[in-house]
Amino acid sequence: MELISSTKTFGGWLKRYKHESLSVKGDMTFAIYLPPQAENQAVPVVYWLSGLTCTDENFIQKAGAFKKAAELGLAIVCPDTSPRGTDYPEEHDSYDFGSGAGFYVNATVDPYRHSYHMYDYVVQELPHLVEEHFPVTQKRSISGHSMGGHGALICALKNPGCYQSVSAFAPISNPTQCPWGHKAFKGYLGEDQATWEEWDASLLVANAKEKLPLLVDQGEADDFLVEQLKPEALEAACLAADHPLTLRRQPGYDHSYYFIASFIDDHLEHHASALK
Amino acid sequence: MELISSTKTFGGWLKRYKHESLSVKGDMTFAIYLPPQAENQAVPVVYWLSGLTCTDENFIQKAGAFKKAAELGLAIVCPDTSPRGTDYPEEHDSYDFGSGAGFYVNATVDPYRHSYHMYDYVVQELPHLVEEHFPVTQKRSISGHSMGGHGALICALKNPGCYQSVSAFAPISNPTQCPWGHKAFKGYLGEDQATWEEWDASLLVANAKEKLPLLVDQGEADDFLVEQLKPEALEAACLAADHPLTLRRQPGYDHSYYFIASFIDDHLEHHASALK
Repeated sequence: MELISSTKTFGGWLKRYKHESLSVKGDMTFAIYLPPQAENQAVPVVYWLSGLTCTDENFIQKAGAFKKAAELGLAIVCPDTSPRGTDYPEEHDSYDFGSGAGFYVNATVDPYRHSYHMYDYVVQELPHLVEEHFPVTQKRSISGHSMGGHGALICALKNPGCYQSVSAFAPISNPTQCPWGHKAFKGYLGEDQATWEEWDASLLVANAKEKLPLLVDQGEADDFLVEQLKPEALEAACLAADHPLTLRRQPGYDHSYYFIASFIDDHLEHHASALK
Repeated sequence: MELISSTKTFGGWLKRYKHESLSVKGDMTFAIYLPPQAENQAVPVVYWLSGLTCTDENFIQKAGAFKKAAELGLAIVCPDTSPRGTDYPEEHDSYDFGSGAGFYVNATVDPYRHSYHMYDYVVQELPHLVEEHFPVTQKRSISGHSMGGHGALICALKNPGCYQSVSAFAPISNPTQCPWGHKAFKGYLGEDQATWEEWDASLLVANAKEKLPLLVDQGEADDFLVEQLKPEALEAACLAADHPLTLRRQPGYDHSYYFIASFIDDHLEHHASALK
């Protein structure tokens, strides 16, 4: 691992690293916030998955999460949102596909199947790397925004026992049924829509082996709410499967980091309770 | 005034406006955060002056100040750091002079004297505009970072009675004696260094008509500390003039917004006490 930067904030340290990833077959960058408590003891980790167009830096710059993380003794790990080293045809042409838009799946379609394995990276490789190199416990929680909210939900639903808690901000709740999901799943997984189902939170809920409660915040003034995010699908699926869901519809809030910042402390408190 | 955007955050509203400024003879952009209390009553205002290269957006995106502002019932107003509509020779060539680097002075040298009147804009025009159009009181405080820390200190020191309180993060404390200040003052004020003195906080302290306490945070790992910032000059001047100064040297902190975010709540508490 190569240290890119190290910055003191709220008594802890925010560090960015580059490392060679086996999952995505190239260099990846991530950020980790180590709270002050990490100087003397191992601390639990919240993984944060960012949305379309983001890197490992959006959350660390804009979410305002570190004061509460320092208070609660939580590390926060922020991966990038896609592999970066490749140059496939059209990979960099859209904001909602290819670079910056890995969708936290394992691609099976050429050429993306050669490197777009963000699911394996986030669920397996990154936690192992973090747990090997930093003063953290093996207790993990996961959260994210939009595409990353989808990522957090599927990672938790597909891996019983792996996470102590999960939450999401404005997640793409039912990607098999929205334009962003269609475009991504077609490009990464191919035309056979049956293969898409294992990457859709609203479909995974029905067969979840663990009833991990889902905490979801959704702004009611979010421009993507109706066409892309579809929290009502997740709500219906949770109701049908008797899966615990706290869906908070927040009047007036949009899709931005100003919305995330407004409620991130609640999410960190939620994770800290589970990680205790 | 033209509304650029309106975003709900922490129960209040963050709005950005463009307006035609008489001081700088062109369009200016600013941001205002109105806390939830502003829906029912007039609230006091903290003015935030940003540093080199910044716009009205750096603070609102990165400082993490709105949770505390909402709790304390403070509006926060963030102006841009220079006029933007002009295209003087070399105006856009340096990060530390011209656009993005107005230094909160009134320029007297051609061509900058035609529009670079950021001091008048920040002290006179903007507060009048804000007090005319928003539910705010006439109680004002001022703070800022680096070049904006210099700005906050000189605005307060030159205008007794105008501000209830003042604070600064890593201010350019003695600009007549550092490279950034030399370059800016020579370019905006000319070769006669006697004219520079009225824009230097460490020189203004000696004759300040009001002993408004100065709160200053300075990171000890700040790369600009020794050559550019010189808090020891401000400290000596305050000691000589018996001017109250709280200078907090923060071990390990750098010049970034991660440093500002770590201590902004303390500054807002300081201002709120004075604004009560």
